[in-house]
Amino acid sequence: MIVKKQCHQIDEFTSFSGNTIKNVKVGWESYGTLNEDKSNVILITHYFTGSSHAAGRYHQKDEEPGYWDSIIGPNKAIDTRRFFVLSVDSLVNINAYDENIITTGPASIDPDTNQAYGMRFPVVTMRDFVNVQKSVLESLGIKGLYAVAGPSMGSMQAIEWASAYPTWVPRLISVIGSAEADGWTTLTLITQSALAPEFFNQVNTQLDHDAHISDPQNPMYDIRKAPPIVNWLMESAAEKSKKMDANHLLYLVRANQLFITGMQNNLEKGLSRIKAKTLFITANKDVLLMPYHAQKAVRIMQSQGKDVQLHDFDGDLGHLEGVSNIAAHSETIRSFLEQ
Amino acid sequence: MIVKKQCHQIDEFTSFSGNTIKNVKVGWESYGTLNEDKSNVILITHYFTGSSHAAGRYHQKDEEPGYWDSIIGPNKAIDTRRFFVLSVDSLVNINAYDENIITTGPASIDPDTNQAYGMRFPVVTMRDFVNVQKSVLESLGIKGLYAVAGPSMGSMQAIEWASAYPTWVPRLISVIGSAEADGWTTLTLITQSALAPEFFNQVNTQLDHDAHISDPQNPMYDIRKAPPIVNWLMESAAEKSKKMDANHLLYLVRANQLFITGMQNNLEKGLSRIKAKTLFITANKDVLLMPYHAQKAVRIMQSQGKDVQLHDFDGDLGHLEGVSNIAAHSETIRSFLEQ
Repeated sequence: MIVKKQCHQIDEFTSFSGNTIKNVKVGWESYGTLNEDKSNVILITHYFTGSSHAAGRYHQKDEEPGYWDSIIGPNKAIDTRRFFVLSVDSLVNINAYDENIITTGPASIDPDTNQAYGMRFPVVTMRDFVNVQKSVLESLGIKGLYAVAGPSMGSMQAIEWASAYPTWVPRLISVIGSAEADGWTTLTLITQSALAPEFFNQVNTQLDHDAHISDPQNPMYDIRKAPPIVNWLMESAAEKSKKMDANHLLYLVRANQLFITGMQNNLEKGLSRIKAKTLFITANKDVLLMPYHAQKAVRIMQSQGKDVQLHDFDGDLGHLEGVSNIAAHSETIRSFLEQ
Repeated sequence: MIVKKQCHQIDEFTSFSGNTIKNVKVGWESYGTLNEDKSNVILITHYFTGSSHAAGRYHQKDEEPGYWDSIIGPNKAIDTRRFFVLSVDSLVNINAYDENIITTGPASIDPDTNQAYGMRFPVVTMRDFVNVQKSVLESLGIKGLYAVAGPSMGSMQAIEWASAYPTWVPRLISVIGSAEADGWTTLTLITQSALAPEFFNQVNTQLDHDAHISDPQNPMYDIRKAPPIVNWLMESAAEKSKKMDANHLLYLVRANQLFITGMQNNLEKGLSRIKAKTLFITANKDVLLMPYHAQKAVRIMQSQGKDVQLHDFDGDLGHLEGVSNIAAHSETIRSFLEQ
């Protein structure tokens, strides 16, 4: 499945906080074919460091397919023989310098000054991400979704979609996600917590084989040297950061910190607007967005008489179960979409 | 119970990595009375930011007693009518500038140069903390313990005691602790993880009451302003850091990163040396030293036929259940000590 990034432009975008941003451009991708009455659209909303590249490959020799390729495609859980699947690069996308991502944020040129916005860019929210996606859909004549689904920060956008535009969203799938950013989440540091201890401990075992702890020549006895696992994480982060923009990171964190379903300081009210049949998938070793987030949303939605179900899965990847190992949940997703 | 800090000096201390440190001084405290045959000694080993101030008060108007005061004292779980309870300030104690703590580390004056050691101070380990404690005990003519007990980093020292000097330790109590620093722990950032989400979310609810998310004047829409919960954590950290030394922090982290019971790269072998009857107490919402640490040690010790038990407790403080709410485990500890 070869995919091509497309570009959508909004000449004047009004943010949730009331600011105008000119010439907003975002990238989007689609998989499958839009049917005649435009009733087969599934929107995929992406995670914190992700993009609209949810499935497929950019060229024949592209080694890394989109992050949910294992469940999006012909005959897969989200079957592109039947569905038109679409995804949009978020505003303030962190990978501002990735040639496959089109985003607007602090690293973009302000047409009024011909300089990068930097920290003059207005703070944007999950609702803004949703509104940009809606603009892309409307430009294609789409007036409603078959379903919206996303992992992690993508879950926040998916839930916000179902609350902000309930008549658009008959089905909602939240994977490793949350209906609000609580105090703990606001503080959370992402890089380590996205993976569970089991993952790091396996890496550590591979790194650690040479140094014996009772050998005074062990580099750990030099206070200026870091443990191998710390070096490994720092090097991984440095490699990833090459395509990232530091200001985009600040804005993206803030968009997460500001999130509460409905964007009205009232989680119950925000969730009460949802009309979608809803599936929450949690990873029981998730230490980033721990399962208590989804459990809380489910409790509230159940008390409101909503059609909501929760599937909790085991797996040593922790939070990233919802991205890297999503294929394990194929049958759950496939059967949910058939209902 | 009024207590007084005492000072113990070691003229030449040889570290586990083979370095000599001159004029090592550490503080210690004791509660209760040493009996004639010196058979009633319980050693308490302290946590990362703790000290030998495990119980009692420094003067009548002292508002804050030692951290385990709720279980150490007359008629308490660790009953000072019967036991002589002793605790020692660790080497490289982080609170180098606290007037109630006596420690030796990078902030100490090197007698050879009359300047602070800084990062020329040798890396020290849990075994070194144990050896300094042993020196204090031996200076009092003590040749064995009734029990050793400690929370968090104190658990590491307690387990190391039982492995390094098995004939000294007939009873071992590990609270919210671990028998080794694995890859995850080596990476862990302490300040946030010591408390569970429930705690921060309660604080956040108290901080958050003024700002409405749909008000464009909400300070969160200023990218230069931090969320209230982040400010709260930063201010708490700044306040605590006044008595801390940054180099001591580096060394203390390293001592933790280097820890594996027995200090021989082999956890099974290290644990196999233990002769103590052992109690592990875990906090099931602990996201700093998660219960899997203690569970792993228990599994290994059970396979070795050791006398070991595990008590897991619920509570919203997470890791800090083992310090702030230790009184909830009084009966478990009291009955363990009677066996």
